[in-house]
Amino acid sequence: MRLLLMIIAFLMPLTPASAQPAGPIPYDGWTLVIHGGAGTIDRERITAEQDASIRASLSQALETGSAILREGGTALDAIEATLRLLEDDPQFNAGRGGVFTWQGTIEHDASIMDGSTRAAGAVTGTSNTRHPVTLARRVMDSSPHVFLSREGADQFSREQGLEQAENDWFETEYRRGQWEAFRARIESGEEIGVLDIDYKFGTVGAVALDRHGNVAAATSTGGMTGKRWGRIGDSPVIGAGTYADNRGCAVSATGDGEYFIRAGVAHEICAQIRFRFQMLLEAARASVPLDDEGVPEYYVHASEFGLETADMQQIADSVIAEMGDLGGTGGVIVTTPWGNSVYSFNTPGMYRGMAGGDRESSVAIYGDE
Amino acid sequence: MRLLLMIIAFLMPLTPASAQPAGPIPYDGWTLVIHGGAGTIDRERITAEQDASIRASLSQALETGSAILREGGTALDAIEATLRLLEDDPQFNAGRGGVFTWQGTIEHDASIMDGSTRAAGAVTGTSNTRHPVTLARRVMDSSPHVFLSREGADQFSREQGLEQAENDWFETEYRRGQWEAFRARIESGEEIGVLDIDYKFGTVGAVALDRHGNVAAATSTGGMTGKRWGRIGDSPVIGAGTYADNRGCAVSATGDGEYFIRAGVAHEICAQIRFRFQMLLEAARASVPLDDEGVPEYYVHASEFGLETADMQQIADSVIAEMGDLGGTGGVIVTTPWGNSVYSFNTPGMYRGMAGGDRESSVAIYGDE
Repeated sequence: MRLLLMIIAFLMPLTPASAQPAGPIPYDGWTLVIHGGAGTIDRERITAEQDASIRASLSQALETGSAILREGGTALDAIEATLRLLEDDPQFNAGRGGVFTWQGTIEHDASIMDGSTRAAGAVTGTSNTRHPVTLARRVMDSSPHVFLSREGADQFSREQGLEQAENDWFETEYRRGQWEAFRARIESGEEIGVLDIDYKFGTVGAVALDRHGNVAAATSTGGMTGKRWGRIGDSPVIGAGTYADNRGCAVSATGDGEYFIRAGVAHEICAQIRFRFQMLLEAARASVPLDDEGVPEYYVHASEFGLETADMQQIADSVIAEMGDLGGTGGVIVTTPWGNSVYSFNTPGMYRGMAGGDRESSVAIYGDE
Repeated sequence: MRLLLMIIAFLMPLTPASAQPAGPIPYDGWTLVIHGGAGTIDRERITAEQDASIRASLSQALETGSAILREGGTALDAIEATLRLLEDDPQFNAGRGGVFTWQGTIEHDASIMDGSTRAAGAVTGTSNTRHPVTLARRVMDSSPHVFLSREGADQFSREQGLEQAENDWFETEYRRGQWEAFRARIESGEEIGVLDIDYKFGTVGAVALDRHGNVAAATSTGGMTGKRWGRIGDSPVIGAGTYADNRGCAVSATGDGEYFIRAGVAHEICAQIRFRFQMLLEAARASVPLDDEGVPEYYVHASEFGLETADMQQIADSVIAEMGDLGGTGGVIVTTPWGNSVYSFNTPGMYRGMAGGDRESSVAIYGDE
């Protein structure tokens, strides 16, 4: 703080009067950004039918959440509804269509976080909860805890009356085939890079800003094909795969979970954006306005203080690059309380979509579109 | 970055030539900081015998790790050896002496992180592994994963040949008594604040800087009395209860795990120290020197650039205060690659100790010592 004030003290007399902002402008729009996994997705691996089908699913998920946000619903409700749809969609590695574990079962991880309160809920290794994202939300809303695991998480799910499913309800022929191929390679004694991105491709996530000015993030996954020893990836780890903070942004990640945990990707992006914004506010001698209850309203327009979408992009890209330097691949979606939204990934493609604000709703698959 | 460069550009002409550092000074000391839990520890609750016994245990643990560091051993080896001792000590809520779950079993969480590579290992819900911190290290060193859970983690532990113990080996009369009192209160229909700090008091942790200039952090715990649904606290969550990064610091936390996860306490402290140091380096137009292999040597003396122990204290205190604003209590231990070490806690006391550098080895219990 001392240093920052010193810098500001030096800066102040040099700032031209015309650079003083006119004052914060409330942002009353909304945004929704989704992903369906990042990996070696290129035009040669995906048929025209698959391409069309994935785009249709992403568009439908985007529209489901957008309808809630457009009507003034909360970011939490929007991302939960969006992910429930993607969990039910067998094309994605979450809920139905999740990958198989070493033992041939399907185990889910999910998390959700509310940027307005930094309340969070997460579950790992559930086997019978139809919608893991809803269970994560219930952990947040109806338990004193943040993070529940395995049989205990499923037990909490039953006690809460959430919809249950037999484990084989989550199975798809495609994922069984992947697992059989994986087992065959293992049994032939082949060395497999278990962190190979294509064995876990298809995690789903959503981040949103609602018209109340709050951001939220959620992520849901089946993890990686052949996972064992109760392996936990980044998706249910608050700060790694998911983070939301009204003072910074909301982030959902997908990729090599181990590297995302080590780099603390979601929290790192939020922290960098928060620090940048605070510095800009202090340099402009401005402050975040308070609402009727004395709570800071973080949806003041950051661009008034020089915080542009390009800054967000640079921050997200640098954190993904840093995670990449550790050896990982994957991507993130980011949205701020000021309406900026970016994707960032170091893989050839990422299933993704964006809606809201003054932009047209769009979905994309490949890195070059 | 743009803003930072702008600030630096403004600052540069104003920096007097005499403020230019003479150049980075390698730090060849070592430090070790430990904790044994934070809570409502005051002189009225602790007998003279308990006080002496706790201090003796902390001193012995400190000396065990110090001996390794003094001889040029690694921070990882020092913190692992230190925590193994505290895990075996029935006075602490880790390993033997861990608290009882809802069902009356004992389940451990632990994690470890290497600041030089940001490699990490963590386990949650193990029942039969004698030294959870060693299992966490084995996950880091000998698996492709970072985080393993419950039966799977114990299975990995057996496959690795680690020492096993029957679950009742971890039991102590004192913890059984706490659990029976807890169950009696539950059965009488009393509302219990399950996050009450005194039901989980006694987590152990260690952070160290070795003579090679690397920092590392580790944490080990039995969690909270009466925990259920496979609850996971902050101790095994990389970024919440444990984080280490040679560019910033090493942190181990203890307290209301749920709040530490939500605030991302360990990663937040590391990120703030890293950003502060980077700003100071850039402002001084200095850079971190590279070693023979081109790896940055982060143990340049930060005080040459104006980064003092008081700055670390202020950062740690502000993050603990922010976690406190969310509603939590607890504390952290922090050490940097530059030899600064601090404690910070918002509870009446924290079992703690510090050794190395040019300071005398010391242990403390209450907040006012």
